[in-house]
Amino acid sequence: MRHPNVPESLDGWAILHRMFRLDRRRWDALDAPRRDAVEREAGALFGALARDADADLGLAQLLGHKGDLMLTHYARAFDALGDVQAQVDKLALRDFIEPLESYVSILELGLYEHTAKIHAELRDRGLKAHSDAWNAAFDELLADAEREPRNAGRLWARIPHRRYVCFYPMNKKRDGADNWYNTPYDERAKLMLEHGKIGRSFHGHVTQVISGSIGFDDWEWGVDLYADDPLVFKKLVYTMRFDEASSRFGEFGRFWTGMQFSVAQLGVFLAGTASPALLAEDVAEPALR
Amino acid sequence: MRHPNVPESLDGWAILHRMFRLDRRRWDALDAPRRDAVEREAGALFGALARDADADLGLAQLLGHKGDLMLTHYARAFDALGDVQAQVDKLALRDFIEPLESYVSILELGLYEHTAKIHAELRDRGLKAHSDAWNAAFDELLADAEREPRNAGRLWARIPHRRYVCFYPMNKKRDGADNWYNTPYDERAKLMLEHGKIGRSFHGHVTQVISGSIGFDDWEWGVDLYADDPLVFKKLVYTMRFDEASSRFGEFGRFWTGMQFSVAQLGVFLAGTASPALLAEDVAEPALR
Amino acid sequence: MRHPNVPESLDGWAILHRMFRLDRRRWDALDAPRRDAVEREAGALFGALARDADADLGLAQLLGHKGDLMLTHYARAFDALGDVQAQVDKLALRDFIEPLESYVSILELGLYEHTAKIHAELRDRGLKAHSDAWNAAFDELLADAEREPRNAGRLWARIPHRRYVCFYPMNKKRDGADNWYNTPYDERAKLMLEHGKIGRSFHGHVTQVISGSIGFDDWEWGVDLYADDPLVFKKLVYTMRFDEASSRFGEFGRFWTGMQFSVAQLGVFLAGTASPALLAEDVAEPALR
Amino acid sequence: MRHPNVPESLDGWAILHRMFRLDRRRWDALDAPRRDAVEREAGALFGALARDADADLGLAQLLGHKGDLMLTHYARAFDALGDVQAQVDKLALRDFIEPLESYVSILELGLYEHTAKIHAELRDRGLKAHSDAWNAAFDELLADAEREPRNAGRLWARIPHRRYVCFYPMNKKRDGADNWYNTPYDERAKLMLEHGKIGRSFHGHVTQVISGSIGFDDWEWGVDLYADDPLVFKKLVYTMRFDEASSRFGEFGRFWTGMQFSVAQLGVFLAGTASPALLAEDVAEPALR
Amino acid sequence: MRHPNVPESLDGWAILHRMFRLDRRRWDALDAPRRDAVEREAGALFGALARDADADLGLAQLLGHKGDLMLTHYARAFDALGDVQAQVDKLALRDFIEPLESYVSILELGLYEHTAKIHAELRDRGLKAHSDAWNAAFDELLADAEREPRNAGRLWARIPHRRYVCFYPMNKKRDGADNWYNTPYDERAKLMLEHGKIGRSFHGHVTQVISGSIGFDDWEWGVDLYADDPLVFKKLVYTMRFDEASSRFGEFGRFWTGMQFSVAQLGVFLAGTASPALLAEDVAEPALR
Repeated sequence: MRHPNVPESLDGWAILHRMFRLDRRRWDALDAPRRDAVEREAGALFGALARDADADLGLAQLLGHKGDLMLTHYARAFDALGDVQAQVDKLALRDFIEPLESYVSILELGLYEHTAKIHAELRDRGLKAHSDAWNAAFDELLADAEREPRNAGRLWARIPHRRYVCFYPMNKKRDGADNWYNTPYDERAKLMLEHGKIGRSFHGHVTQVISGSIGFDDWEWGVDLYADDPLVFKKLVYTMRFDEASSRFGEFGRFWTGMQFSVAQLGVFLAGTASPALLAEDVAEPALR
Repeated sequence: MRHPNVPESLDGWAILHRMFRLDRRRWDALDAPRRDAVEREAGALFGALARDADADLGLAQLLGHKGDLMLTHYARAFDALGDVQAQVDKLALRDFIEPLESYVSILELGLYEHTAKIHAELRDRGLKAHSDAWNAAFDELLADAEREPRNAGRLWARIPHRRYVCFYPMNKKRDGADNWYNTPYDERAKLMLEHGKIGRSFHGHVTQVISGSIGFDDWEWGVDLYADDPLVFKKLVYTMRFDEASSRFGEFGRFWTGMQFSVAQLGVFLAGTASPALLAEDVAEPALR
Repeated sequence: MRHPNVPESLDGWAILHRMFRLDRRRWDALDAPRRDAVEREAGALFGALARDADADLGLAQLLGHKGDLMLTHYARAFDALGDVQAQVDKLALRDFIEPLESYVSILELGLYEHTAKIHAELRDRGLKAHSDAWNAAFDELLADAEREPRNAGRLWARIPHRRYVCFYPMNKKRDGADNWYNTPYDERAKLMLEHGKIGRSFHGHVTQVISGSIGFDDWEWGVDLYADDPLVFKKLVYTMRFDEASSRFGEFGRFWTGMQFSVAQLGVFLAGTASPALLAEDVAEPALR
Repeated sequence: MRHPNVPESLDGWAILHRMFRLDRRRWDALDAPRRDAVEREAGALFGALARDADADLGLAQLLGHKGDLMLTHYARAFDALGDVQAQVDKLALRDFIEPLESYVSILELGLYEHTAKIHAELRDRGLKAHSDAWNAAFDELLADAEREPRNAGRLWARIPHRRYVCFYPMNKKRDGADNWYNTPYDERAKLMLEHGKIGRSFHGHVTQVISGSIGFDDWEWGVDLYADDPLVFKKLVYTMRFDEASSRFGEFGRFWTGMQFSVAQLGVFLAGTASPALLAEDVAEPALR
Repeated sequence: MRHPNVPESLDGWAILHRMFRLDRRRWDALDAPRRDAVEREAGALFGALARDADADLGLAQLLGHKGDLMLTHYARAFDALGDVQAQVDKLALRDFIEPLESYVSILELGLYEHTAKIHAELRDRGLKAHSDAWNAAFDELLADAEREPRNAGRLWARIPHRRYVCFYPMNKKRDGADNWYNTPYDERAKLMLEHGKIGRSFHGHVTQVISGSIGFDDWEWGVDLYADDPLVFKKLVYTMRFDEASSRFGEFGRFWTGMQFSVAQLGVFLAGTASPALLAEDVAEPALR
């Protein structure tokens, strides 16, 4: 299953993004007790998901016609994503929100440099490629990487609690001379390194979550950006677009943008009379991260 | 009808994939006796199809907005697929599930190497190409291949009973210098061989069902992958994408992913309060396979 | 209006394909007398169209979500197609069938070789190109071709009564170096000849109806294939795809596939409890063909 | 505002095409007095628009699912198009017709040759490019062209009263080596001249109305063709496709085709029991044209 | 965060365009008192937004099926755009208008020349690139630019009060040899300068508002054009298309066109019996601009 040409990855949370349109006119037509009940039921589920050590939930108010509400679900496995999809679809709130789009992926740390190091190390040890010994040693080295606290923390990090979020899917192009998948490993590794440097030059300003979706959804990766200022999204994505990894090889889907808010502010979001906030207590994140 | 440039194939089950959205709010609004009746009626049809020696049925809970339920129908002929499409559309359950997409294809074993061998063999026998003797000998050699137990078993294998399923359609590109159909036979055969090796390096981890749809549906092939761990889909499809057969020539449609479940778990799926399971008894497959 | 670079064609039936979704749940909810009445009304119109010497009608049960029913209308002129579109839309049956797609075209015999012969012949006669004499002689030679019984029969042939049908629209590509319309006449003629040979190697197995739609609908041609075995569609279209006329220059739209059935079987189709058949009496075709 | 590389144009009618689907089942369900009232109200508006010296209206029965009815509105300005859009949307008839698509453009006479002549003339006069004198002289020469009776007649010609109509939008390609907008002026002028010759070889058989939509709608131009025989559309568009201006540089949108009919035949169209006709009195056109 | 290859920008208003379809038949079916109430409620919100120093609102009557009404919202931040989206969606008017599309962006002044100057200036000062001193100096020079009254005025200019508006999104292409993002900075700067000259040759005839949407919406920029004569849109966009910045590198989305009108004319727009006007008092703009 391992090929010297293919970078390994470490895989964490199973992720489901769901974008919904909210029918505010129908919502406002409900009487207050019914609104309270619907909101309490949804709030209870959302709160449980957000507090669950084996799950997480992000809520965002979206801008524009591509959705009013985005739910970002994290789970330990696809089965649990299926459960949570059903649970949300059973809420009375679902009479007022209509699903427009979604995205299925698994949080992923790409290991371009590390994979090359493992291949070199195993060569140095004199192991025959794809022999049992080689495979065992490979597994061990990869498990080491997965256990590294920095990696483990990122694979199972909770949804970043920053005010603004931007989500988009993307591919690496395979178009004539601009074919990422035909480009030699070392060149790809170099381009990814450069690409990462741009990301790091925004360190502190943005939190990036990459998830892999090849075999799961219509694009190859999903990208979530989180920041305290939405201009950071524009500057980061624009800057990266000049980088060869994007300029020659990046292919982008739709973009969704909005403001994250706390489960406790669900009522404010539904009322629509004020901006639902991302509350301070939520920003204090669990120890794990 | 035979051309030295065109690989022959063996053809098995006629296949119809159908993806449906389930309206859980309307379903939950039914009273219990009515829910039971609707479920029993659908379960009876689904069970009969799954037990039929001349048909098969796969049920999967999908992730995301592209569907909640996928039905994979196998039949001996297109006429029977039409019948089963009508039967499902007559179920009371259809008031709660809305068809979003579908795919029509025929299970296919590509014979790149074997076709070349037949052409060589007939040349060696000194038969005039496309003469009656040549045609008769060709038919015989192909029928031999079809009767080989390994091939016969694959052509009429039942739907693999593994927990996770992924379906996508694909084409071979015809784009400027990357034109599969203008590539010499031997080069194509070599690329398919390499491609197959990657598949085989995942042996035991994944079961792959290829079906041909040229002349039937909007893409040239449909691919079903079945595995016990969904990460296998990501690793396999990603690894293959670096292979020249995919990197230069693969063109991919939408991807649907989910969890297979047993007919006996239909009620659990519809209730949506727990994960419908793929039961052990179902995993014990009929002798044929 | 005639240009040496442009092949002439002969033109026959005006054709309208219509693909409908059938709501079987609403249909089954009707009481029996009402179902009978709706069916009788539709059957009367369909039967009249199928028996009309100046029209024809094909009925097919489609597979998948792109439609359940395809109506193929032939008429002597566009005006009559408009009439029949309105007549069908006035049927009570239309409350149960929803139009999803359609295609407008005119049955066409391409004359690549013949056009070249006419140009050569007129050159030999020493006529000045586009002079009145040249135009008159051209018209006469073309009319001769149209009167040839084999051509006349094909231009006004009725819808082939074979069990399986496949319809798709297509273009000739104009993409960089693969530009059909910039390719010299002789090379195009040669490619069409090769293409035709493949078609002829399937002689007896398939009946092909080509119709032109440039200026009428979104693609340049519509193709109907009719066969007694649907595998023939897969083999034919796949084989042709390796042919340069398709591999470099073919651009394909959606594919619709299904089973033809007789007007007398409309009730069986609507009931959905058995396969509506193409009856033997229908297969006995009018003398014209 | 004037650039030697950019051909000038003369601009006439503001044009709005609207394509509607007619729900014949709902229409037929109305009682006769109500049908009469609805039809009279619509007929009164349509008649007024068709008789207005400052407007025009074309009615066409379309073929296929892309619409049953096309309204072609001419007005002196965009404001008036907005008014007429509102007026139609206020008709009771709008309960039965649903807008599917539209197109916004301004009738345009391209001046490839004439622009080159003006530039040359001003050079000959020794005027400094873009000086006030140069600008004034340019305006004057262009106004001369606009006042030429042949041009003035075409800019404000009424909708051609021929039985068949075909509408499609188009672009000039900008794709690698096939980039119309990077092609030198003289070469473009030559290609447009050749293109025009093909059009002229169909003189008398077809009336062509070109309108510009850059900055107004999703394509660069709209094309209306009018003829007494729909085969003329197929022959013309096919012949032009071999012309370099189309084969290398033409990019085409959807095509709508149908039969024009007179306002007085609106009831016949709505009844759907016979072909609504283009009446002789309508074919007698106003003197202006 | 700063890269010599990437032009800096100054950023102003957060912008949300929303395109709605108006159901005039439902509107007209309301009784007069209810119509008045709905209109008063919407007018009150629209008026407040249009008078707000921290917001602005543009109203336009659109042509064609892509919308009847466009709302252009300006706000100081994304949060306020979210608020205003909710406020509009709570209006009773929303029962009659359906959102079809939208666009999210931030008003932007591109600084191709200025960025190069800053880089040169910092080089001249001998500062080490990306050192703290370099960063501080860069910030200072950019802040200077932002404070320049001409720039400040443009960043926070109110919506131009001219009769006609045209909106479209666009990208810079990344296609083989036509890859804007791989083009050297100096060449891009030169192309943008040329492009700007064309814009300036239309000075007085058109007001252009560019907003950036990379990271926010599906295209890279949004463009609003405002003019007193819609022909200016056609001439400007056509002229620019011949410019290399557009011909080789421009990629365009859909175009929306219409007539701006004053909040006080909302009732006229809804009544649909006359053209809603852009009133003189509105054209007298706030001092800021």
